Amino acid sequence: MKIALAQHNYHIGNFESNTKKIIEHIHLAKKNNADLIVFSELSVCGYAPQDFLAFDTFINHCETAAKHIAKHCLDIACIVGLPIKNTSPIGKKLYNAAYFIENGEIKSTVRKTLLPTYDVFDEYRYFENNRQFECISFQNKKIALTICEDLWNENHLYSVSPMDELIKQKPDLMINIAASPFSTQQGKERQHILSSNAKKYALPLLYVNQVGAQTEIIFDGGSCVFDAQGEKQMELKSFEEDFQIVNTEQLLTLEKTDAPSEIAQIHDALVLGIKDYFQKSGFSKAILGLSGGIDSAIVCVLAARALGAENVLAVLLPSQYSSDHSVKDALDLVNNLGCKSEIIPIHNAANAFEEMLSPIFKGLAPNLTEENIQSRSRGLTLMAISNKLGYVLLNTSNKSEVAVGYGTLYGDMCGAIGVIGDVYKTQIYALANYINKDEVVIPINTIVKPPSAELRPDQKDSDSLPDYDVLDSILFQYIEKQQTPSQLIEQGFDKDLVNRIIQLVNNAEFKRYQTPPILRVSNKAFGIGRMIPIVAKHNP
Amino acid sequence: MKIALAQHNYHIGNFESNTKKIIEHIHLAKKNNADLIVFSELSVCGYAPQDFLAFDTFINHCETAAKHIAKHCLDIACIVGLPIKNTSPIGKKLYNAAYFIENGEIKSTVRKTLLPTYDVFDEYRYFENNRQFECISFQNKKIALTICEDLWNENHLYSVSPMDELIKQKPDLMINIAASPFSTQQGKERQHILSSNAKKYALPLLYVNQVGAQTEIIFDGGSCVFDAQGEKQMELKSFEEDFQIVNTEQLLTLEKTDAPSEIAQIHDALVLGIKDYFQKSGFSKAILGLSGGIDSAIVCVLAARALGAENVLAVLLPSQYSSDHSVKDALDLVNNLGCKSEIIPIHNAANAFEEMLSPIFKGLAPNLTEENIQSRSRGLTLMAISNKLGYVLLNTSNKSEVAVGYGTLYGDMCGAIGVIGDVYKTQIYALANYINKDEVVIPINTIVKPPSAELRPDQKDSDSLPDYDVLDSILFQYIEKQQTPSQLIEQGFDKDLVNRIIQLVNNAEFKRYQTPPILRVSNKAFGIGRMIPIVAKHNP
Repeated sequence: MKIALAQHNYHIGNFESNTKKIIEHIHLAKKNNADLIVFSELSVCGYAPQDFLAFDTFINHCETAAKHIAKHCLDIACIVGLPIKNTSPIGKKLYNAAYFIENGEIKSTVRKTLLPTYDVFDEYRYFENNRQFECISFQNKKIALTICEDLWNENHLYSVSPMDELIKQKPDLMINIAASPFSTQQGKERQHILSSNAKKYALPLLYVNQVGAQTEIIFDGGSCVFDAQGEKQMELKSFEEDFQIVNTEQLLTLEKTDAPSEIAQIHDALVLGIKDYFQKSGFSKAILGLSGGIDSAIVCVLAARALGAENVLAVLLPSQYSSDHSVKDALDLVNNLGCKSEIIPIHNAANAFEEMLSPIFKGLAPNLTEENIQSRSRGLTLMAISNKLGYVLLNTSNKSEVAVGYGTLYGDMCGAIGVIGDVYKTQIYALANYINKDEVVIPINTIVKPPSAELRPDQKDSDSLPDYDVLDSILFQYIEKQQTPSQLIEQGFDKDLVNRIIQLVNNAEFKRYQTPPILRVSNKAFGIGRMIPIVAKHNP
Repeated sequence: MKIALAQHNYHIGNFESNTKKIIEHIHLAKKNNADLIVFSELSVCGYAPQDFLAFDTFINHCETAAKHIAKHCLDIACIVGLPIKNTSPIGKKLYNAAYFIENGEIKSTVRKTLLPTYDVFDEYRYFENNRQFECISFQNKKIALTICEDLWNENHLYSVSPMDELIKQKPDLMINIAASPFSTQQGKERQHILSSNAKKYALPLLYVNQVGAQTEIIFDGGSCVFDAQGEKQMELKSFEEDFQIVNTEQLLTLEKTDAPSEIAQIHDALVLGIKDYFQKSGFSKAILGLSGGIDSAIVCVLAARALGAENVLAVLLPSQYSSDHSVKDALDLVNNLGCKSEIIPIHNAANAFEEMLSPIFKGLAPNLTEENIQSRSRGLTLMAISNKLGYVLLNTSNKSEVAVGYGTLYGDMCGAIGVIGDVYKTQIYALANYINKDEVVIPINTIVKPPSAELRPDQKDSDSLPDYDVLDSILFQYIEKQQTPSQLIEQGFDKDLVNRIIQLVNNAEFKRYQTPPILRVSNKAFGIGRMIPIVAKHNP
């Protein structure tokens, strides 16, 4: 059987473009003599539609689109994903489902059984879980079709295993359609799960994943085919659309190649994240504050790669505390990239505020307040240019500083999308070296100088934070691994340091609530995947 | 049997204060010869602990606290709520549970069956659902104990009904422990559900709800007792802690009284919301920008009632577009309330930005950008005072403007907590009249003058928005009732108006992502209970 794997980047709620893409590829597959074409989970509407699912008309749009798609399925069958109504009066109103379409008609429906409801997933918010299992009959073969999580039975979260049910009907082939997001851990785990399912059930497995970023969640694609021995036979591209046809009777073992490095994957994920945020929102031009430091330099490079350097405006906003080299380093980067730039010193604005506030602040020493005034004057200036000239502001906060709350709300925490908010400072350095691997893009001085916010004379990050190696290890254990202070101390970290760092993280919850969405590249990013009470005694 | 109902305001994660409160009331109940004392859902840790539940140590703290509580249960039994570990290797790692404690020992455990996962609830993110049903045996009686949603079987969301199972064991009494949040609709629905359960199973029903605000979610208490005929026999206070003892053999029908008006309930809810946000975060002083308009006036009154007028600092931030009466109206309110005030004109700061930006804005006409600069200069000034003097900034945006995006991100959308972000403008007027019912607190001119943002000469809200009656009706249908534009037009609303308003709402999703948490008083507030994709084609 010749099966086409269609790995697409869908636009949530854009039935016109999604349907067009699906129909075009049905015809392309037919032209290439495919018997069946497979699209990813919720392909008709894009994943994840969230509370759009509460609108009756949204579900009707999905059904109408599917009927329109069905008309094009002549001499070729197709599997598409969409939400469908639960016709029973009991249970959630919808199923996360897939239609099997043949001869222009919807021949059968498969419903998702295991509904991920953790981290960034909230499927049980919307969907009822399936309890009936039936293989699809096609060309005298039986296909065991499952939807994403249905195959992820190794986590023991569920008491049912859909494939354990379907295998009883002696299928010839497994197909899994997915919307499985990228993280640096996810790729390896996904390959393991798919391979072990193929082996366990001794069946070939075709896997079709969504690609593209939906605000903060980045889908990496990497659709693939495993043979009945669990060996990989085909793999589609990562971080871009792809289309391949496989002959299930002639599976050829793929030569093993090394996966790209973690940093290379993060780089590609973030470029895609920026690109899709802009394209899908109808914007093309980005603005950012360029300080001469490494964080904004990285964001500037990623933005130039995603949108074209000509669409990136880097604004230098020096104050009296900015060092001479900061402006030079920033301008060197601008020259290397060929993006646009402006220099707007902020001291007049900062002075105006300090003067306005001098009666009420009389007798009080300068402190963080004045640092925040500088940071917020920068934010205000960037937002004004954004408003006037139609540029979208990129946020440049890294995960380490977002974690400990070293950022000013409404100041450097401004922006439409947080580009590196899920990238620890130690990874930022690795990203800079990766970007510079063939030629110097990011000025060497930007990489080697000690990091500083430059909000007061001779300020350095190391004045108040430990080495980033140590800081990031503590943060990783607390945020990603849910290790508490006592467990961290047992691991050998310094007690006072651990307590101070964890307290900083906890005290910043109210700030993080108001940060922009952050492109997710780890298993636990700040944002919708991490829900911590703001008003609480923080000693989990 | 004499049963004490303990309606408390718990602090999430504060085991020390929660345990102390619980133990004190065990002794109080014992002193009053109660046989049993009942605490609300997850009383040991507070509801909702969210991702604190991912920390092993948090669960251990709960268990330790419960064991400590148990030691005090001599000559009195007790029911407390807490998360417990799922000892099976299959399924979610936790149950939302209750311990029945007698003679100093945990005698039985009841697990929650129906796990609300919609709107602000996400219990299936954490908990496995119960599948075993057993009544509690106590003093030769059988108690059917359920947890909150377990009784809400009228919504047909679930295929199991815990009381249908428990009734087979012929219980003598029903107890339900809850963490059921306030909304203007919830009170009536809750009374209906409880009464109809009592009638259906022909058993008395004791209901113990949590009270107090947890960031945006406000629990109203209102614990109560129904007799086997579904008549209310006792009701505890709303919006405050309460403690009552009921003799289940001598239930006396309560005289029927009218429930407080919807506006009175909103008033009390918001005062509690502010109070608990501050108390539980360890703050006491609030700051807000007072414009002379009705929104900030309402917030100022509510803050003064929650925190004491002496703890409220109202800052007047006039620009060249502020009308003369604005300052007068604002100062009249300050005088009426007795709160503190400052006047800080913002034009120097706004001028500094416009000058800094003049080269890059050369040849471009003034537009929304300059209005936003004013709004952000105000936000920056308020945040500076907040930082320097330790006041917490209150956000004053109402639901109508949050909905259509008539607010400036990092400007008037600043603040730690959105006080009236779930109150439509039409309700704001009703709140003002309610506040003024006995004496003029809010100046009449503030109420009667046409609403205006005063960001350009002679600006009025009505320049670009329909009457608030019409606007709020459209918004309510779209946000609360998930009616789409076509359905709204069918309802008789003007087509162009509907399309324009809905587009405004949809285009503001990126802004709302970064707003402060909003005190929730409706069935569908902006925030964690309403998840809409930012990057999408918005035509649900």
